[in-house]
This record gives sequence, structure tokens and C-alpha cells, in this order.
Amino acid sequence: MKNSALYAAIDLGSNSFHMLVVNEVAGASRTLAKIKRKVRLAAGLQEDGSLDHAAMERGWDCLQLFAEQLQDVPAENIRIVGTATLRLASNIQVFLDQAHAILGHPIRIISGEEEAALIYEGVAWTSSGTGRRLAIDIGGASTELVIGEGTSALLLNSLDMGCVTWLKRYFNDGNLSETNFEQAIAAARQVLVPNASAYLKLGWQGCIGASGTIQAIQEIMINLGEDERITLPKLQALKNAAIDCKTLAQLHLPGLKAERVSVFPSGLAILIALFDMLAIDDMVLAGGALREGLMYGMLGQHQDRDARVRSLDSLMDRYQLDRTQGERVRNTALLAFKQVNERQPLEDASDDILGWAAMMYELGLCIEYKRAPEHGAYILSHIDLPGFTVAQKQLLAALLLNQRDDFQLAALEQQSATSYEQAILLTRLLRISIILCLRRTKGTVPDFHVSAQGIELTLTLPPNWSQTHHLRASELQQEAQRQTELGWPLVIKQGEE
Amino acid sequence: MKNSALYAAIDLGSNSFHMLVVNEVAGASRTLAKIKRKVRLAAGLQEDGSLDHAAMERGWDCLQLFAEQLQDVPAENIRIVGTATLRLASNIQVFLDQAHAILGHPIRIISGEEEAALIYEGVAWTSSGTGRRLAIDIGGASTELVIGEGTSALLLNSLDMGCVTWLKRYFNDGNLSETNFEQAIAAARQVLVPNASAYLKLGWQGCIGASGTIQAIQEIMINLGEDERITLPKLQALKNAAIDCKTLAQLHLPGLKAERVSVFPSGLAILIALFDMLAIDDMVLAGGALREGLMYGMLGQHQDRDARVRSLDSLMDRYQLDRTQGERVRNTALLAFKQVNERQPLEDASDDILGWAAMMYELGLCIEYKRAPEHGAYILSHIDLPGFTVAQKQLLAALLLNQRDDFQLAALEQQSATSYEQAILLTRLLRISIILCLRRTKGTVPDFHVSAQGIELTLTLPPNWSQTHHLRASELQQEAQRQTELGWPLVIKQGEE
Repeated sequence: MKNSALYAAIDLGSNSFHMLVVNEVAGASRTLAKIKRKVRLAAGLQEDGSLDHAAMERGWDCLQLFAEQLQDVPAENIRIVGTATLRLASNIQVFLDQAHAILGHPIRIISGEEEAALIYEGVAWTSSGTGRRLAIDIGGASTELVIGEGTSALLLNSLDMGCVTWLKRYFNDGNLSETNFEQAIAAARQVLVPNASAYLKLGWQGCIGASGTIQAIQEIMINLGEDERITLPKLQALKNAAIDCKTLAQLHLPGLKAERVSVFPSGLAILIALFDMLAIDDMVLAGGALREGLMYGMLGQHQDRDARVRSLDSLMDRYQLDRTQGERVRNTALLAFKQVNERQPLEDASDDILGWAAMMYELGLCIEYKRAPEHGAYILSHIDLPGFTVAQKQLLAALLLNQRDDFQLAALEQQSATSYEQAILLTRLLRISIILCLRRTKGTVPDFHVSAQGIELTLTLPPNWSQTHHLRASELQQEAQRQTELGWPLVIKQGEE
Repeated sequence: MKNSALYAAIDLGSNSFHMLVVNEVAGASRTLAKIKRKVRLAAGLQEDGSLDHAAMERGWDCLQLFAEQLQDVPAENIRIVGTATLRLASNIQVFLDQAHAILGHPIRIISGEEEAALIYEGVAWTSSGTGRRLAIDIGGASTELVIGEGTSALLLNSLDMGCVTWLKRYFNDGNLSETNFEQAIAAARQVLVPNASAYLKLGWQGCIGASGTIQAIQEIMINLGEDERITLPKLQALKNAAIDCKTLAQLHLPGLKAERVSVFPSGLAILIALFDMLAIDDMVLAGGALREGLMYGMLGQHQDRDARVRSLDSLMDRYQLDRTQGERVRNTALLAFKQVNERQPLEDASDDILGWAAMMYELGLCIEYKRAPEHGAYILSHIDLPGFTVAQKQLLAALLLNQRDDFQLAALEQQSATSYEQAILLTRLLRISIILCLRRTKGTVPDFHVSAQGIELTLTLPPNWSQTHHLRASELQQEAQRQTELGWPLVIKQGEE
């Protein structure tokens, strides 16, 4: 196996410096190294607008680490950008000259608009959606706000507020008081006033968040067993929980990492102001932002395709899945879903997840046959799959786990992408479809019809089909018994001649 | 991804009928389907040597299941063989005619010698070892005994005893009495008398077992927390444990599957006789036998390479691992091991496992970066990797898990391939080597020397190396602190100019 060249994206942020090193495998990027240091550059910004020497030293020390690994990357595959704090500091040239000497590569200080555009590209590359999308990234010293469509930004702004600067301004006393929060939120609202109307006017269909603040919020919510969509009431509840902790030093929320604690309340305050001023209904987390936008530009992958299609394609290649067989099961499963939905319209009529699960049902075979459903679920639960949200991956994993043998209901209960009832239905249809597609040759799937009456499914097969297809008939009988015993009757019938 | 053609191997045994369907992915076979039915053909053998009709019906019913899937497999990729009971039955042509009509393919009744040769090929293909190997497979009605070298059988026999026939003869009353066991063992010894001396004369370096009986014994031992090597004292202990259960109906041993219970004591008795008569020291389990031998003949993979080399090669390809980087870490780790071993000879001087772990250390990256060590360990723990024993995979998984970040000592304690102390040493050397190889370019690994004084390791680097290699120096410092805190001092030194 010849490995592709390396690519590196370095992002010198106000809070942390990051280096990401990847190579390309089957149309997807594989992360080989991630180095991150909490440089807290923004904390060195003086009242006179200059950056103090201690902050510069912290930055240079970090760059010396990056520099070593950077030598392995061809110059044309390197992107290094500096953002908010570097933009603002009046004496930045001092920092840049030494930084260039250390890295052997120039740092590009990007404008707020460039940053916003890159973030949007990163978000668009790693998330999915149709129509206009609002992307929000709360950094250490700036917050980017972009409406885009596809991979193009339509309206973008970089606002001078961030979780580090807001920490210094509104939570400097370490108190998580109602007053501090209200002042932080009010100040963020003030920053938004000149921009909000343009965003509201253009409008969007879905809102996607990036950055540590938003990721931390989602992790807390998943820890609390809630679904992954961030809403204003949930943010308010988090604010109240933080206030109950009284001080930053005492702030403990389930799922909140220690390293994130200090900038959490300030980031939360900014996000509350954004939800409020822009009347955001809900937000999901993107898989990437600035660094991914930088990578995306270099890797030059097809941007015309939906991130999920691209991810699924790469997955099928990387794990050597049989595409023809996957499509056979998908077509069968989607037909069954359509048949059920026609007669008894479903509350959640989305069949995307079922189609994806069908395409990748054999994923676990890359490890071994016997416990392949578990292996597939393991991979899906952990894999980096741009375009899919955490909840979607959870449901996909639950479907893969339940593709054959005994049902594992806990996984279907715990997923939060759809209702338990819908998850059960998808599972039942997937299992039936896999059996119907047991043969791996064109033209071997029988004409069938699935109808639902309440929870009872009836699968009708061609006349005398079972007498001539012993394996599938036997597997379907066993499956009917399994489902029926669990309280979901499955009746297998044959049509009359 | 274009998938290769399918291959099918069907084995009509005395106890079960099996069908295995695979395709070929990157030089390894991937199992797509396994169908097994407990046909218990041997139970239908009458005193007059004929097979009763009920047994034939059970067989034909099963073949009708196989027949459906078999249509997907090109005729030249199909092997169907019948063994002991089919060889013995006087009226077998009745069964074969109907079977041929059902399958659309002829069944080849193979002689005991052919069976033994195929079993040896399957064992050789799926296990590793140098020199002469003794392979033993206890079937339902026959036991195959082969000494071979490489992939060629040198001495082979198929003996008329098996776990189903011995069950009928010696445990028919359902009692797990000392007497029944003694009679079963004595009878097996009688069968061995004419052959034992030829085997003892030829000799062997390692003994490998195949078949359900031996697998069941290993599963029980792993369940009891013992190492994977089967020895006579362990077999005797199992026999006593079985006797304590009094009857077959009450036989419960931890790790023994319900479906295996009835033929377990009879198989155990035969194995005890074999260990005793052939003075076998210990035995490990092979990953395959007859069906794998059939597959092996069809897939035509290079037989001149050690199974482990072939497996590792395929793994590197299937998971798109960077071979150059793997070799860099392996060479570094093996050099470090050699340096330690030179000055302070190790009790267990085997460095194979360390080299393999180094080659595949990035395995988990195929899932995602952050928890890659866990993912790599997960894959290794479950993957089908011909040539590696269960214990070796356990140790490899423990090494992958411990390649970076905090140590997870439990995995190193639980593995049974080597001592805990040796596992710790291998882990420490692997971690140091990965850091030394952090750069991915030729000629970037420094000259180094690792020496051991008791548990203390000293890593000596070139003069001033740390001043010019900030990332690795920083990682090594952190690593030294981690190891030292756990009570294994690691000192990082630089040579003098």
C-alpha cells in the first residue's frame, strides 16, 4: 500500500494553536497526527493593543513543536493561518518574523471574512443539508457567522467577541452570577445588533455550529441523555446549572471537560445571545470548521456531492464492501418502507437512514463473520464520517447491530435520531430485506409486498416461492417467529396463483 | 469496489453439515456466509452398516438450504466433500444420487487419508510454526492424525473414532461416570495402538488441534482465565469436572456451549487418549481445518509464506496502513529490544510480537484518530487473522491499546501470551519507538541506545538532539514522566560531544 502525501493545516487561534496532519485514503482524509496547545494568545493582548512578550513566547514554543513534524509535509500541502488575536495585535510583525523563522513557512493572517468563509467551507464539507445553512463558530476572540448554500458563502461576518475575551470581560471575578451572565449576554446582543437583520432577512433552513463551545454543549447534552439538537431552552437550563455552581472554580457539569471549564460560561452566554437575536430554533454540531476548511481547499475533493454520499462512498471503498449487494439490500429495504408507508403513513417518513444502513450492512465482515453485526456497530459508533451527526451514527450503529440473530433492543432505545417505534420498524424491514437478498446474484430477489396493520407486518411472497427457495423460506420463518415473540407480529404469506 | 467471485466449501460431516462462502479481499478470504446444521448423520448408522432413511432426510433437507445459496457460486469455485459416515454407509449411493440432484453438483466422498491431508492443509494455512507439526482433528466419526512440514503432510491417518460414535458407544446411558470415561479412553487407546509408534518415531516440534471438541476445550480454559495451551493435566481436570456433574443432562462447564454438551465428554476422552499415547506436551488451536483446506486449494494463495506474514500483509492492505512507517517503527523497536537484551538477557527473548505490533500500530486510525489505540485493540481482539493464536492476538491488542496516552494495565495483565513483566517491557519499548519515529521521513530516527538496569530504562540520544527536536523531546519527557510515575523509571539522556 503506497500512502499518499501528507497535508498539514495549522490554525493559530486566540485560545489554542492546532496542527492537523492527514493523508488521503480512498477519497477521505485520515488523520495521522493532531497537536494542540492551549497558548491563550488572547490573554496577552494589552490595553494598548499590543501582544505581550510572554504570550509571544508561548506561541513560539508551540510553533517549535509543529515545525518538527511539518518537515514531513510538502510545502504545497501546508496551510498556516492566524486569526483574531493576530489580526488585532498592533505589534504582530514581531511575532510573525520569528514564527516564520521557526516554521520555515509563512503564516497568513486572514481577515475575519476569510476566516468566516473558510469555516463555512469546513462546516459544509463535514456536515450535510440542503438549502441555505447558517454556520456559527465561537472562537477565542471572534465569532463567525455565515449563511451559505452548498459550499458557497452568501453572507458572512466575523464579530469581535469570543469565549476568551468574554471570559476576561464578564467573568473575570470568577463568579457565575446571574449578573455576570446577563452582562455577557447583553454585550453579545449589542455586538449582534448591526448584523442580525441581514441574516434574518436572508434566512436559512438549518443551523450548524462548530467550535469547542458548541461541542462541549453537545457533549453535556448527550451525557444527560438528551437528543443532540441544541435549543434555547436547553441553553437556558445549562446557564442555570452553571449559576448553581456559583463560581468558575466550582463549575462541574456532567460531560464538561476540565480544560473547557474556564471558557464555558462566556461561550454559553454568546451562544444564548445568538439563539435569541437570530431566533434560532435548533442547531446541530458540524464535524469540522476552520482547519477542515483549509484541508478541504487542498485535498480538492468533489464539492458537488453531499458530504454523506461522499463519506458513504469512501466507507464502501475503505472497507471493501460489496456495492452491488449493498444496493440490492437498499433497494429492497426502501421498497418495503415505501409499501408500508403507502398504506399506513408513518409519522417519520424518512428512509435515508434505512438506505444507508442497508448499503453498509456487511461492514463488520471486515473484522470477522461471527460477530459481524457487533463489529459493524462498533465501527459506526466511533468512525469519523463527515456529514453524519452523532445521533444518525448512533441509529445506524443500532441498525447494523440488529441486522440478524437476536435483537439487541437497548441500542434501539438509546439512539436519539428517531422514535423507538420507528427504529424498530426500520430494523424489522432491514432484517427482512437482508434475508430476501441472501442470494448475491442479479434477479434473485422475489416480488414481494410488505403491508402494515398497526404493529403487524405481512410479507407476501410469490405463489409457491417458499417451496423452491428453502434457505430464505427457512430464514424468514425463523425471523417471523423472532419478531412475533417480541410482540411485533410478522406474517409470511404466499400469493395465490 | 469490484468484489471477487465467490467460493464455497461444503463439508458433509458425521455430526454437522457446513457450508462456508467466502470471497477474496486483498489476499485474504472474507467470510460472507456460514450455514451449519446439526444433521447427526452418524446417529443414523445401523448395525448392518446402512444409513437409515431418517438420517438421509435430515441430510437432504440441509442440502436444500445449501443449494439455494450455491447458485451464486461459479461451479469451478465449489468443493463438496463427504467424510466418515458417508464413507462407511453401505447404502450411500441412495443418499448421493438424491444429494447430487438437490445440489446440482457432485459430492466427492473422500478417503480418510484425503480428509487428513485436507485437514492438514487447512491447519497449515491458518496456523503458524516451523518444523514438523502434528495436527489432530476429532470429528463426529473419525479422528485425523497428521504430521506435516510446511504445507505437506508426511504421515497421515484417519482413525475410526469420533465424538458422535464414542458418545453412542460409551456415554449412551447419559452417565458421566469414571467407568464410562475409562472405557472410552481405553477404547481410544486401542484404536491408537497400531499407529502411535510411527508418529512417535517421526516426531514433531509443535502440536495443533482443530475441530469443535478442541475449540470447546480452549473456550472453557480461556473462561477459567488459564492460558491457551492445552495440556494433559488440564484435560484430566476437565474430565474430573465433568464427572462431578454426574450426567450429560447436568453437564455445565463455564464457557461450554449448550449445543456442544452432548459430544463433549466423548471428544474429551479421545483427546486424553491421544495426549497420553503420543506423549503430547501441549497443543494450540488452529483457525481452520477441512473447509479451510478446501478453500485453500481453490484460492491458491502463496503457500510458501508463513501464515502470519500473509495475514499481516493482508491486514496492512485491507486497512490501508502505511507500510514504510510501520517498518520504521518496527526496526526501531526491534533495535531497542536487542539493545536491552544484549546487556541484560531477557527470560522471554522473543521479539516477534513487538515487531508485529509496531507494523500495525496505526490500525485504529482507520476508524478515527482520537481513540485510535482503543479501536486498534478492538479490531485485533476480534479479527480473523490466520496464523496468530488467541493469546498472541490478545497481547497484540494490549500493545496497540497501550501505544500512547495513559497506560491501561489491565489489558497487559489479562493477556496470557507472555509474562506481565515482559508485556510491560514490550509496551515501554513500543511507546518509545513510536515517539522516536514521529517524523515520517527517511533518515529522521536518531541514533539511540536503550539500556536496562533492572526495571530502569535509559534512553541515550545524540548530543544536543533535544535542543533541535522539540516535539519528540517534549513527547519523550512526558513519556519518561508517565513511565517513572508507574514505577518503571525511564531516563532520557543525551550523549556527550
